Amino acid sequence: MSTLKSFIEVSADSHFPIQNLPYGVFKPSENESSRIGVAIGNLVCDLSALVDLKLFESSSLKDTKVFHQGYLNDFMSLGKQVWSETRKELQKLLSSENPTIRDNQQYKEKIFYQIDKVIMLLPARIGDYTDFYASKEHATNVGIMFRGKENALMPNWLHLPVGYHGRSSSVVVSGTKLRRPCGQTKGDDDAAPTFNQCKLLDFELEMGALVGVPNNLGEPVPISQAKDHIFGLVLLNDWSARDIQKWEYVPLGPFLAKNFGTTISPWVVTMEALQPFAVDAPHQDPTPLPYLQESGKNTFDIELTVGIKTEKMSEAHTICKSNLKYMYWTLSQQLAHHTISGCNLNPGDLLGTGTISGPTEDSFGSMLELSWKGSKTISLGESGETRKFIQDNDTVVMSGVCKGKDYQIGFGNCVGQIIPAHKY
Amino acid sequence: MSTLKSFIEVSADSHFPIQNLPYGVFKPSENESSRIGVAIGNLVCDLSALVDLKLFESSSLKDTKVFHQGYLNDFMSLGKQVWSETRKELQKLLSSENPTIRDNQQYKEKIFYQIDKVIMLLPARIGDYTDFYASKEHATNVGIMFRGKENALMPNWLHLPVGYHGRSSSVVVSGTKLRRPCGQTKGDDDAAPTFNQCKLLDFELEMGALVGVPNNLGEPVPISQAKDHIFGLVLLNDWSARDIQKWEYVPLGPFLAKNFGTTISPWVVTMEALQPFAVDAPHQDPTPLPYLQESGKNTFDIELTVGIKTEKMSEAHTICKSNLKYMYWTLSQQLAHHTISGCNLNPGDLLGTGTISGPTEDSFGSMLELSWKGSKTISLGESGETRKFIQDNDTVVMSGVCKGKDYQIGFGNCVGQIIPAHKY
Repeated sequence: MSTLKSFIEVSADSHFPIQNLPYGVFKPSENESSRIGVAIGNLVCDLSALVDLKLFESSSLKDTKVFHQGYLNDFMSLGKQVWSETRKELQKLLSSENPTIRDNQQYKEKIFYQIDKVIMLLPARIGDYTDFYASKEHATNVGIMFRGKENALMPNWLHLPVGYHGRSSSVVVSGTKLRRPCGQTKGDDDAAPTFNQCKLLDFELEMGALVGVPNNLGEPVPISQAKDHIFGLVLLNDWSARDIQKWEYVPLGPFLAKNFGTTISPWVVTMEALQPFAVDAPHQDPTPLPYLQESGKNTFDIELTVGIKTEKMSEAHTICKSNLKYMYWTLSQQLAHHTISGCNLNPGDLLGTGTISGPTEDSFGSMLELSWKGSKTISLGESGETRKFIQDNDTVVMSGVCKGKDYQIGFGNCVGQIIPAHKY
Repeated sequence: MSTLKSFIEVSADSHFPIQNLPYGVFKPSENESSRIGVAIGNLVCDLSALVDLKLFESSSLKDTKVFHQGYLNDFMSLGKQVWSETRKELQKLLSSENPTIRDNQQYKEKIFYQIDKVIMLLPARIGDYTDFYASKEHATNVGIMFRGKENALMPNWLHLPVGYHGRSSSVVVSGTKLRRPCGQTKGDDDAAPTFNQCKLLDFELEMGALVGVPNNLGEPVPISQAKDHIFGLVLLNDWSARDIQKWEYVPLGPFLAKNFGTTISPWVVTMEALQPFAVDAPHQDPTPLPYLQESGKNTFDIELTVGIKTEKMSEAHTICKSNLKYMYWTLSQQLAHHTISGCNLNPGDLLGTGTISGPTEDSFGSMLELSWKGSKTISLGESGETRKFIQDNDTVVMSGVCKGKDYQIGFGNCVGQIIPAHKY
């Protein structure tokens, strides 16, 4: 079988071939309305225009209003069958063999936009944001730094995907600048805390799952059905103020250290597009309790990178190469665990994986780990610059891609720049 | 000056005299639309009907659509001046001296509903729910139980209002039944965790502040302005699964132990109605950092009670009498602290105070404290029943009231019943 191709030209290194078709919310220009599109090559295909032009055939899409919204929630709530149907129809309409749009210039003008000209918005109205702590390497690294090698993993860590509730109001789309936070910090030798700018500002390399299908309060999702509730994935930068976190987090967890901003990539890559890249998750020992047991290939081979670009640099320098497949607890285990209490998830809820660190020193997913708590200097390559934590005006660029034989399925970039703190 | 009175009859022990006028969202019947009303005596006054009948005079209310919504968010976002104007107009329209509605039977039929006949809904679309830990007595009690008297308060506790992010999707309105959660628990002597129904189910007596006026991301709210961002207060029961919490909560805080449900009362009592009951907050030593310093009367004398009603009882038996005024960190300190990182708050965001315990044993705001970790038995009075934690089919009833010379400002009840767990 030959590889599916689109009449839209897609370069070999593009993240967005016809096999991907990630969903995003965009405005063609500041004064136009928000709507839903899919990325293909260097273009955005406006799905609301496809509806207006009556190009969808299936009954669930023909007259739909879900693509005229400024958020994916309504579409995501329709479930796996509709997601799959939409993908099929889009691949058919965009196929090199289908003349309907290919040979109709008027259609093309109404449907396609240059991807670098549109304004990308948050892909969903995020009701609740949950963050997990699911990478064994990350939890171990942080544990060693703060509690020593013997007590690195907490007793519960190998038994359940540790998670906590995050702040949804401050989740922002890639490209949004974030202000360095201020807050209370206290050095080990200080008698009392002081009010300061955060001095140990960090990124955390994560991915985020967007919930599509909801569950009712009091009705846990069995792990066998957990996958059907996830619409797709984004890249996620869980910005962290390490010095604020250290002082505030006992006993109830991180609060202000995390809630000044969380950046996600604008394009949601669907679970269906990722399926060819499914791989086995790490072996789990001890065997988890039955409600967390699953079989088959439950994670994905997604190559992740983080780069830093300072004001003096023209391009980001890569400082971390990791992979989703290193993560110990899978996305379906996270979702099943999240609901086992009866907690209800809604369309648009965001589940962060937690920092995804790999086994080698260059695969650690945070400055805290890469600089080993500030004890090492991280080189930013030819620029000659170095970092231990994030400085003002630094830009952090995350990227993710699945590399196939004939095409790649990519996430594009997740970009965030830190601007100076308020002056007091 | 004589006390303001309404032409609506209000008994002396009513929580809802014309001086209160708390806001709520209701439906007259299952098939009618949601709208906004205020409670007065045993009636609900439909504010959308007042608009439709053109009874509001001020320009900001005359043609407003905010009262035709199924949530208070839009009204709450309008800010203090409009809140105050609305209160004045309502007190005028409902006054015993104003014949406009008093003497118009047709108006009355369109405007008023029996309070026990309508369906009350959640008062707001809650974007984010934050829970604080602001009672010194509660934090001390829990600290003594888990860490001993010497280390009861964590080092940060006297310096900042400890808070964490909660789950907004499972915040439910009073009257909603909640299922006992299941999850992982591990006894101190067990080799591994097991999957169980929660055996140590608890309530937490709290109040919740609803944010009215938002702040932008990156723009902290100075403490001098914090009060203007809070629309009003509700009662809040932060249900807690103590055995699940104990195993899961290190190092990132409570998760499934709290996210199976949080109950709030349906009537939002405005800060303006509470103002006559403002009192000094407890003395703070050490003096907090400048961003948390305030002067004046910054808390309220609100008498709080918790009762339990078992299946065998016809009325709840009071097991706790506390007061908001015991709380160490004030609502404005909580809000100022929450935003000091730059975190944005939106209309409808809910800030829980944390368990409000008082100085005496009968004023502790949770079963954990009242039964001192299950070491004491709590009597449920004449029924002859006793409890250490909450049993299946028990109903927890919270109530709150400010007692004035001529009237009371009350919150009504916050009621929740626990139904049996899922069978596995």
